[in-house]
Amino acid sequence: MSTTKAYAAQTATTPLAPWNLERRMPTPYDVQIDILYCGVCHSDLHTVRNEWGGTVYPAVPGHEIVGRVTSIGSHVTKYKEGDLAAVGCLVDSCRECNNCKKGLEQYCLNGSVGTYNGKDKHSGGVTYGGYSKRIVVHEDFVLRVTDKSPLEGIAPLLCAGITTYSPLRHWKVGKGDKVGILGLGGLGHMGVKLAASFGAEVTMLSHSPSKEADAKKLGAHNFLLTKDESQLKKMKGYFDFILDTVSAPHEYNTYLDMLSTNGAMVCVGAPTTPSQVYAFNLIMNRKTLAGSLIGGIPETQEMLDYCAANNIVSDVEVIDIKDINKSYERMLKGDVKYRFVIDMATL
Amino acid sequence: MSTTKAYAAQTATTPLAPWNLERRMPTPYDVQIDILYCGVCHSDLHTVRNEWGGTVYPAVPGHEIVGRVTSIGSHVTKYKEGDLAAVGCLVDSCRECNNCKKGLEQYCLNGSVGTYNGKDKHSGGVTYGGYSKRIVVHEDFVLRVTDKSPLEGIAPLLCAGITTYSPLRHWKVGKGDKVGILGLGGLGHMGVKLAASFGAEVTMLSHSPSKEADAKKLGAHNFLLTKDESQLKKMKGYFDFILDTVSAPHEYNTYLDMLSTNGAMVCVGAPTTPSQVYAFNLIMNRKTLAGSLIGGIPETQEMLDYCAANNIVSDVEVIDIKDINKSYERMLKGDVKYRFVIDMATL
Repeated sequence: MSTTKAYAAQTATTPLAPWNLERRMPTPYDVQIDILYCGVCHSDLHTVRNEWGGTVYPAVPGHEIVGRVTSIGSHVTKYKEGDLAAVGCLVDSCRECNNCKKGLEQYCLNGSVGTYNGKDKHSGGVTYGGYSKRIVVHEDFVLRVTDKSPLEGIAPLLCAGITTYSPLRHWKVGKGDKVGILGLGGLGHMGVKLAASFGAEVTMLSHSPSKEADAKKLGAHNFLLTKDESQLKKMKGYFDFILDTVSAPHEYNTYLDMLSTNGAMVCVGAPTTPSQVYAFNLIMNRKTLAGSLIGGIPETQEMLDYCAANNIVSDVEVIDIKDINKSYERMLKGDVKYRFVIDMATL
Repeated sequence: MSTTKAYAAQTATTPLAPWNLERRMPTPYDVQIDILYCGVCHSDLHTVRNEWGGTVYPAVPGHEIVGRVTSIGSHVTKYKEGDLAAVGCLVDSCRECNNCKKGLEQYCLNGSVGTYNGKDKHSGGVTYGGYSKRIVVHEDFVLRVTDKSPLEGIAPLLCAGITTYSPLRHWKVGKGDKVGILGLGGLGHMGVKLAASFGAEVTMLSHSPSKEADAKKLGAHNFLLTKDESQLKKMKGYFDFILDTVSAPHEYNTYLDMLSTNGAMVCVGAPTTPSQVYAFNLIMNRKTLAGSLIGGIPETQEMLDYCAANNIVSDVEVIDIKDINKSYERMLKGDVKYRFVIDMATL
């Protein structure tokens, strides 16, 4: 084992603070990565505060990891020392179920292993995430990243990027499609960039008029103020696809109304309370309400390659790790454009 | 105009009773049909009692119509006097919108014309349905039926049949798929027959143990008692597709839990109250909750041809039209296997 500096929450109510964790020595199939940047996802905060239940303490969050390979196991073939590399939300899965075989490790039928607060198959304990100096991961769950884009902007692609890329691809969003992106946060801003890059006509749906200029800078063609009933009514039946990135409780029927025949609204934000849905609203134009979870390893690599080829990165605010607790408070207020990324050199 | 015997409701609270309506004389494109059988759909009752609002009285319901052509307009090419013919839920649409052009007249963007309580383009009044001796319909909305199957069993295919056929086809249900049919009524019994005929493994989901034997007779391979929590839990992640035919208010999350990765639950029953849905439940295995409405004219013809080729008809109880009000009461109690069909010779 090797001791690694990290930031951890010791309980659901204590702030994140320095802590030393133990990483395994690389097995023959492992890649050891020195972490350069780690994005700050809202899931980190949910986990740290045990808002979803089941958090094991100390908890070290972080699953938007970019760094450099410092050591490889003897059987590793895909990476070598000195390579840039990334780790996203998953560090393992059963690899044997039908979903794993299809590269849908995020839906592993035997339970994938999250990058943090997952069940670590090696230690028997819990996995520790990217708010740390170093991570050791099986090469099959390590991803290649370009050296042509700023690494801090790549980090959030590992969660915010793939979470929006995957449903846009699965529902075949492209040229000629009218796409609404609901919510302009970490996920939403990637949704706008990606949907626009796929050739869709993109409308930002937001309750905040101040977001219009920003949304358009990111690539949105239109802006719809969701608290203006008259604007909403005009859009009845308009969208082929709505990506719902909002995790605060909200109404679904309003947005289902705006879908066209065969249109789909896909949730990637998960409010903790349920929303009411009228079956009639789905029946009338054969509409779909669906959900989507991050992406599998092959698709995450495809997304990283796509973003590299198209110069797409996340818009980030780089922070010092000692400011992480303050950043959580700002994140709760939506005061970030659009993702905090920890410069791990500050640890 | 020609006077036609019918049964009509004069108000939301009066029983259906004899009434004479006026049918237009066939225009050059019209087909005049003597109605032999008309199925009794739950929508008839909703309309008669104004439970959805908007009913215009006198109201003559009925949209599962089979009969014989007695006269055609001069430009009619598809039918001739003496042919068997059918009319379903639609008698017209704009024919110009993108949906109509694709044969999705049920989703006509300018509003399709229902067979009853629709806006009649000819009379300027309201359309009158199949609880009548005769109907006059544009040939494009008339359907061909086989003379090889009992006509009374064909009638319910025009609504119950196509309403279940269309989503099963749209979501490509077939061999190897595990399909759950929720509710064993007019729609559900057609769902079982059709899904089984497509090669799927069919499970009847019902709260009533007495339905097991019947469901299996119809072609279901398995039966799941939905009020038995332990049975439900065992089926977590099991179904590729669930067809929800229940129009009484019910819970959705229970059934979403039973969907596999990429599974879809499609509502064809429309409870008047909304159901609560957890986004998390959709996200975790990229599940779909969707709706579907009857079918377009080409698909309705396809369904009729498929049923003719595969000897599929509805299981019906033929009634005298004077028993229609009693039959409504029995329908409300679920006391029908599985569709009442009016023998129009009794009018």
